[in-house]
Amino acid sequence: MSIHAYLLEMKKLLHGVDGWLTKTVAFAEAKKFDANTLLQARLAPDMFSLIRQIQGVCDVAKFAAARCAGKDAPSHPDTETTIDEAKKRIASVVAYLDTFSAADFQGSEDRKVSLPRWEGKWMTANDYFIEHGQPNFFFHLSMTYAILRHNGVDLGKRDFLGALSLR
Amino acid sequence: MSIHAYLLEMKKLLHGVDGWLTKTVAFAEAKKFDANTLLQARLAPDMFSLIRQIQGVCDVAKFAAARCAGKDAPSHPDTETTIDEAKKRIASVVAYLDTFSAADFQGSEDRKVSLPRWEGKWMTANDYFIEHGQPNFFFHLSMTYAILRHNGVDLGKRDFLGALSLR
Repeated sequence: MSIHAYLLEMKKLLHGVDGWLTKTVAFAEAKKFDANTLLQARLAPDMFSLIRQIQGVCDVAKFAAARCAGKDAPSHPDTETTIDEAKKRIASVVAYLDTFSAADFQGSEDRKVSLPRWEGKWMTANDYFIEHGQPNFFFHLSMTYAILRHNGVDLGKRDFLGALSLR
Repeated sequence: MSIHAYLLEMKKLLHGVDGWLTKTVAFAEAKKFDANTLLQARLAPDMFSLIRQIQGVCDVAKFAAARCAGKDAPSHPDTETTIDEAKKRIASVVAYLDTFSAADFQGSEDRKVSLPRWEGKWMTANDYFIEHGQPNFFFHLSMTYAILRHNGVDLGKRDFLGALSLR
């Protein structure tokens, strides 16, 4: 399977996060608090806050697509402070993922990916996707879910998985 | 890339969980509490406890491999109550994953996977792996990590990702 098939799943899951945030707003309205305060919630003092987790899951998906296709990713300055802005960030990344097709990932087994902190070392795009892109994507996705659940937002596994391709 | 390449990553990540539990035992000894009490910790009252998350990540990996290869998975009765037993469960699943090779997943695009709760509907093994197996694997893996971090165990992203195939 091409990396593109897994990117389509990332796109679906990011769309799911938008739905979690919609539920978060409804939860905050029912409880009469400002939903945006939750963006500063974190599971441990030395872990990222909710808004950083959301920015993280967006960036990991963006960079996984761009780097594995040998393209330059657009910049997002991480300035979001409200749920509305977080939703726009997600929509922007989903739209960016839509610009890719399976053909963009041809040759990914030979494409080199390197990050500045790797000091000249590199990985193949395939290895990078499997060992770095995907685990980081799911890490920030799951921490986003965990912070919301820990704070009482009514989400379940179906919200996490989204619709399945049942036949 | 074959499903097998992604299963090898699951195996690496499961091995990582064993390392997290080793750190958990050391943390509990330093803090002078029984590490096994943490197995009942959870992030929300209606979420799985740590031991259920560990059993979950083990089972998802096992079933993803078996179902995508058209094999029957061995049974694990979920009787673990200690960290030692949790580590044995992980080792058992890692050993099971070791029995698979890339050839086991040939034809996965045409293999049907069905679960009893799907009431006769099915997915291709490829769709099942991408939309169900992987997200569920990372869900339980990440919740395991989140519960430990939330309770003070000193883990970081490197513990989550494990070693990378840098060249």
